[in-house]
Amino acid sequence: MIIVTSNKGKYREYKEILGGHFNLKLMLMRYPEEQLDTIEKVAERSVYYLSGIVNDDFFIDDSGLFIEAFKGFPGVYSSYVNKTLGNEGILRLMEGVSNRTAEFRTCIAYYDGKLNIFTGKVQGTISETARGKNGFGFDPIFIPSGHKLTYAEMALEKKNSLSHRYRAGKAFLKFLTKKAI
Amino acid sequence: MIIVTSNKGKYREYKEILGGHFNLKLMLMRYPEEQLDTIEKVAERSVYYLSGIVNDDFFIDDSGLFIEAFKGFPGVYSSYVNKTLGNEGILRLMEGVSNRTAEFRTCIAYYDGKLNIFTGKVQGTISETARGKNGFGFDPIFIPSGHKLTYAEMALEKKNSLSHRYRAGKAFLKFLTKKAI
Repeated sequence: MIIVTSNKGKYREYKEILGGHFNLKLMLMRYPEEQLDTIEKVAERSVYYLSGIVNDDFFIDDSGLFIEAFKGFPGVYSSYVNKTLGNEGILRLMEGVSNRTAEFRTCIAYYDGKLNIFTGKVQGTISETARGKNGFGFDPIFIPSGHKLTYAEMALEKKNSLSHRYRAGKAFLKFLTKKAI
Repeated sequence: MIIVTSNKGKYREYKEILGGHFNLKLMLMRYPEEQLDTIEKVAERSVYYLSGIVNDDFFIDDSGLFIEAFKGFPGVYSSYVNKTLGNEGILRLMEGVSNRTAEFRTCIAYYDGKLNIFTGKVQGTISETARGKNGFGFDPIFIPSGHKLTYAEMALEKKNSLSHRYRAGKAFLKFLTKKAI
């Protein structure tokens, strides 16, 4: 099984989420992503591009943080916004905004001759300050519902037992296990 | 001459900028845009897509507002950020930021069997408040250098005599005129 990504943080998480079930290999590369309004659509287009150049079953992960008060911003552009505005920028935007609800979403797009989509979502809130050093991206400012710690304050195993990526990965694993029987 | 765009504001500006020189027709549609780091790259990929479906010479306009303090954000995603965060969001981000320098950039990508690129840039600053009702997008918060009014406070003819779009249009017009001789 190959994961195509330019983000080593995602690779690390999938190694743990998919566990010993599969021999996960990393193809470290960038690939075209279209400007579309859902992570599923973005992933779908990228998979069709990659299917022409990757000679084995593979998957990609498109994830994003969707903030309710900002109509889903940064959403599909989470990676770009994280690099330009950073967590500090998001916290600045949230100042004085009472609705701090946000959702982290992952879409796994798996190609084995045809496209298979698995999604995972976790509701939560944007924290008042950035906290924690684990994970990557917006992890220091996202508190999943029912918890007090941000993703970045949790041990990797903890985050990987409840995250949006874990949820998508679980559905993916179920599909793969069924397929292998 | 055909302009392909989903933004009627751009069409109106080009009608004036290209003047009576060309019979400008509007093809009102969306087209795929890739997530790339410059408006030139985005426009180039879109043109190759459109060249397969538009049966005449055409051009597209990819423009963006690049804010220095935020590493160019919102840049190539200006349209999306305008729809989600709006001018209010940008002003909120700028609170307490001393460097208010920004640049508006336009890239015209014209296809006449091959690709021709024309660019225009205008330096300026982000205003303290949103002012004016003309234009579209980030016009109410952009003050071009050497002026006191925002783009949105200027009459359309005034904006069109100095804007980033005007500058790109001028280079485009020069090319077209030369070509017609």
